[in-house]
Amino acid sequence: MPSYKAPIRDYQFVLNEWLELGKYSTLPGFEDLSIVDPILEEGARFAEEVLLPLNQPGDAQGLGFKGGAVTLPEGFVSAYKTYVESGWGAFTFPTEYGGQNLPAVLNMPLTEMICSTNLSFGLLPGLTHGAVSALELNASGEMKRNYMPKMIAGTWSGVMCLTEPQAGTDLGLITTRAEPNSDGSHAITGTKIFISFGEHDASENIIHLVLAKLPDAPEGVKGISLFVVPKFMVNADGSLGARNKVTCASIEHKMGIHASPTCVMNYDGATGFLVGEKHKGLRAMLTMMNEARILVGVQGLGIAEAAAQGALAYAKERPQGRNMKGAKFPDKKADPITVHPDVRRMLLTQRALTEGCRVLAMWAALNMDIRRRSADETEKTRADDFVQLITPIVKGYLTDAGTECASLGMQVLGGYGFIRDYGMEQLLRDCRITQIYEGTNGIQALDLVGRKLPKYTGRYLRSFFHPVTEFIEANRDDKAMAEFTKPLYQGIKSLQQASMWVAMQGLGNPDEAAGASVDYARMFGHVVLGYIWARTAKIALAQLAGGTTEKEFYEGKLATARFFLNKILPEHFSLLAKISAGMKPLAMPDVVM
Amino acid sequence: MPSYKAPIRDYQFVLNEWLELGKYSTLPGFEDLSIVDPILEEGARFAEEVLLPLNQPGDAQGLGFKGGAVTLPEGFVSAYKTYVESGWGAFTFPTEYGGQNLPAVLNMPLTEMICSTNLSFGLLPGLTHGAVSALELNASGEMKRNYMPKMIAGTWSGVMCLTEPQAGTDLGLITTRAEPNSDGSHAITGTKIFISFGEHDASENIIHLVLAKLPDAPEGVKGISLFVVPKFMVNADGSLGARNKVTCASIEHKMGIHASPTCVMNYDGATGFLVGEKHKGLRAMLTMMNEARILVGVQGLGIAEAAAQGALAYAKERPQGRNMKGAKFPDKKADPITVHPDVRRMLLTQRALTEGCRVLAMWAALNMDIRRRSADETEKTRADDFVQLITPIVKGYLTDAGTECASLGMQVLGGYGFIRDYGMEQLLRDCRITQIYEGTNGIQALDLVGRKLPKYTGRYLRSFFHPVTEFIEANRDDKAMAEFTKPLYQGIKSLQQASMWVAMQGLGNPDEAAGASVDYARMFGHVVLGYIWARTAKIALAQLAGGTTEKEFYEGKLATARFFLNKILPEHFSLLAKISAGMKPLAMPDVVM
Repeated sequence: MPSYKAPIRDYQFVLNEWLELGKYSTLPGFEDLSIVDPILEEGARFAEEVLLPLNQPGDAQGLGFKGGAVTLPEGFVSAYKTYVESGWGAFTFPTEYGGQNLPAVLNMPLTEMICSTNLSFGLLPGLTHGAVSALELNASGEMKRNYMPKMIAGTWSGVMCLTEPQAGTDLGLITTRAEPNSDGSHAITGTKIFISFGEHDASENIIHLVLAKLPDAPEGVKGISLFVVPKFMVNADGSLGARNKVTCASIEHKMGIHASPTCVMNYDGATGFLVGEKHKGLRAMLTMMNEARILVGVQGLGIAEAAAQGALAYAKERPQGRNMKGAKFPDKKADPITVHPDVRRMLLTQRALTEGCRVLAMWAALNMDIRRRSADETEKTRADDFVQLITPIVKGYLTDAGTECASLGMQVLGGYGFIRDYGMEQLLRDCRITQIYEGTNGIQALDLVGRKLPKYTGRYLRSFFHPVTEFIEANRDDKAMAEFTKPLYQGIKSLQQASMWVAMQGLGNPDEAAGASVDYARMFGHVVLGYIWARTAKIALAQLAGGTTEKEFYEGKLATARFFLNKILPEHFSLLAKISAGMKPLAMPDVVM
Repeated sequence: MPSYKAPIRDYQFVLNEWLELGKYSTLPGFEDLSIVDPILEEGARFAEEVLLPLNQPGDAQGLGFKGGAVTLPEGFVSAYKTYVESGWGAFTFPTEYGGQNLPAVLNMPLTEMICSTNLSFGLLPGLTHGAVSALELNASGEMKRNYMPKMIAGTWSGVMCLTEPQAGTDLGLITTRAEPNSDGSHAITGTKIFISFGEHDASENIIHLVLAKLPDAPEGVKGISLFVVPKFMVNADGSLGARNKVTCASIEHKMGIHASPTCVMNYDGATGFLVGEKHKGLRAMLTMMNEARILVGVQGLGIAEAAAQGALAYAKERPQGRNMKGAKFPDKKADPITVHPDVRRMLLTQRALTEGCRVLAMWAALNMDIRRRSADETEKTRADDFVQLITPIVKGYLTDAGTECASLGMQVLGGYGFIRDYGMEQLLRDCRITQIYEGTNGIQALDLVGRKLPKYTGRYLRSFFHPVTEFIEANRDDKAMAEFTKPLYQGIKSLQQASMWVAMQGLGNPDEAAGASVDYARMFGHVVLGYIWARTAKIALAQLAGGTTEKEFYEGKLATARFFLNKILPEHFSLLAKISAGMKPLAMPDVVM
């Protein structure tokens, strides 16, 4: 049975020392930081005590499906009720609609803890969160008042309905139709697939945000509109009315997230209400999808943390073989496997990726808060630039890290890793979808090279490059920092070269940029984490020099920084070589491919 | 429903053009190559028509377990019967025991096809093959006559019983005891875990090869003996006698290979017969394990091929988006996703790994044949050197490639890849164990740096380095080859530097070699495939210059060679940097790890 302890000390480190949250006390929602520790502790209790015990049973039991109704595994409905009653869903939303208006950066630890302990469960509030954001940004005042309070409370849930059998990445191909009714509503007809929590028994109503085409729609992505399609119609007084013509036709059998229903949804002339302007539905969804992408990144992070904890706990307790330089525990029959350098390599990879990705996710969230809450336009713009740039990296890099950490965890556990009881294989099965949904990681990489890199002739890019080069410059004479800043300097140099290459080649031939995109995005992620770890080392060195009482904590940070910068970051050398090789090696005779 | 066509043309290419099998006609078993095509075709029929249709149903149904008896999924017993009746199990073994004495290199395609279409099934004959090899090398004449003919025929199966709960990699920790009986047999008592096909209903008898300790055994790995423990005792006339005291206590629930029983086996004073010398059991097993490691590598290769076929078939048929330089199929609503450079990158990675690994596996097998069958001692030694060196790479690199190709296949299929019906997720689940069992890939890497690299001051190493440097030298003036030999030259240079680093550092501190081992093994594998692809390019260029009628086939080879050498091999740059960073970044305060 897997165990898990929320990494509260690390959240505090990121919030207080890395992000220096105290500096933002003038931002609305940031005034009182005394709430932070109680929030972390309460979140930890919910994750550890309510969600974790349901995770393996939920995977084993799976979902019920009968007559269009989906039943969640035992205990899930009650856990969701606890979630709703604790008010977690209302965390970041405006008080006007019943929210608590708290910073997104403080919501990140909770999201991560939920995903560490029960990814399937985490999809439900995550999707509702995204749907509320879409309404908040695009819906009329009346629509907001009708739907947002119940969704923010969590008594109603929300889902996003984009994909159709023939239209995944390419949403221009959707065929779901919206015919105007005489009362201003629309009749929605079509089939959507891969709809997570499209149907379930944990909330009183389900609010579908559906992409569909109006009769006068232009071809392709410019002819897509967004509609609200409630499962139960909502009366003027807010009570529930008749069942709408939306039904779950079937649920998929999947590799993982067995407790999360993946539904085929049929809309048979279902009543829908236009959200925002007609034909502008994709834009409305994209804003929300960008938030969702950060959240999916955190799903990867959550799995990475759970896998890292599981592997370390196992490794410390598993005696097998001897340290090659001589037994460490000669009185025992074998040393714990932590003495073996390659096991340490795996554990340190998990640790470096997990803790580094945590900083990245929370750093992105802080910038989301700044762009939303700051009164300073320059600061807002700078924050938005960074969020725009970093979103595809958070989604792609963190979910890759999640799968890698789960796979490393399995390798550390050896044969036991492949056995269900030990829980590691579930982490791997659950995590794998995060690299696919909400825009595959290949699509994230295309977003980075195709949209984010060229934007405003590289202005987004500079929101990351400037702080890094400043940091390297500022630490030029700090000898203790040399082992961290030197590899970081090589990394940022490669990234600058690669950025130039992609930008120049992409001008002449967009296929060149596309062919380099995944290697480029990976390099970018590595360099971001390189910067994160170098700054972490700086903080740790200062704490150790100042005689901290938490010597082991900061020595651990320093050692992990050293590992990342010397054993993971150097991959940029090869990525640069691969990128520079260009498109020619991607050619293939047409008859073959 | 996944489809699969055996890559017969590619087997012919490897056998005839890459390995030039015609050159070995003086070796016993190699005289008549007219048998090759019929063998390939019959093997293909068995895999495509018998095994493939059982693969998904077997995964879904799983195993039955009741009162110690294991029932294979529907159809598996009958498929095994077909296998036995076709005589496949007898392929490579001596005619003296009913074998056909055919070359191992010709057995490779069959093994690969079986693993491509039904990995769970493939374990059964694979394990029997290993058990027969162990008996052939270590058993007395009488024991061979008693067991080998039925096992070679396949009516009896064989299993290897090494692992115990507290003893996985570290076999010195086993506690299973062997007490001498008065009749010369031994009473075996203990529990073995992770015993694949330890119990099942497809063969008449199951011959367990069990590691156990005699009462006078020295501590650790030097006190292990090997015993034959038949499920049913064998009478003097070869008929089956009483049931032995060996029982299956339970079977594991696993991530994959659901149709392969992973058994906990109890030996309660079971009758066993010593194989070979006492206390020399590990050595007897290791010879066999080395063969088994090659076979496990081929399991990875089989999955890689199946995943590559599945992904390519899907990609060719899936219209989504447009080529960025303009529509390729303007009359259709979208282009097939093969137009997207990143999809091509994924498909080409699968292809380059699969076809390259195939050459490697068959090249290793040919050398196994040479060392066994050649009359020339120098040739035998050279072949053995190469097999010794390459075995851990075949096991580690090919199984890593299998998982990577399955994961890439899932990414190409997008959301469909995660859904059971499409079969790709099963390939990923099934393959993952191959990186763990038969010695984890970390253990393979340790074998490479700790045993193979230093052996005879690098003599094993030279069995690979010499042909590569000769090849580069011989093609120095061939301009058409420059795009292949240049990256290969860089790769072998890195590998030589890394070998030197590992050898020098490892002398002073074995932990240094161990810390670099996985990066070193990966680099080694890349360079081996780099050489394979460069030689393949040479062959393809000659064919194209000679006006071959199979232009597309050889152009495909050339394009794939270009891809591997420019887009995968360059990873050696980073691996060298990581290796050179040494052990220091693997240190961690003891309190943390």
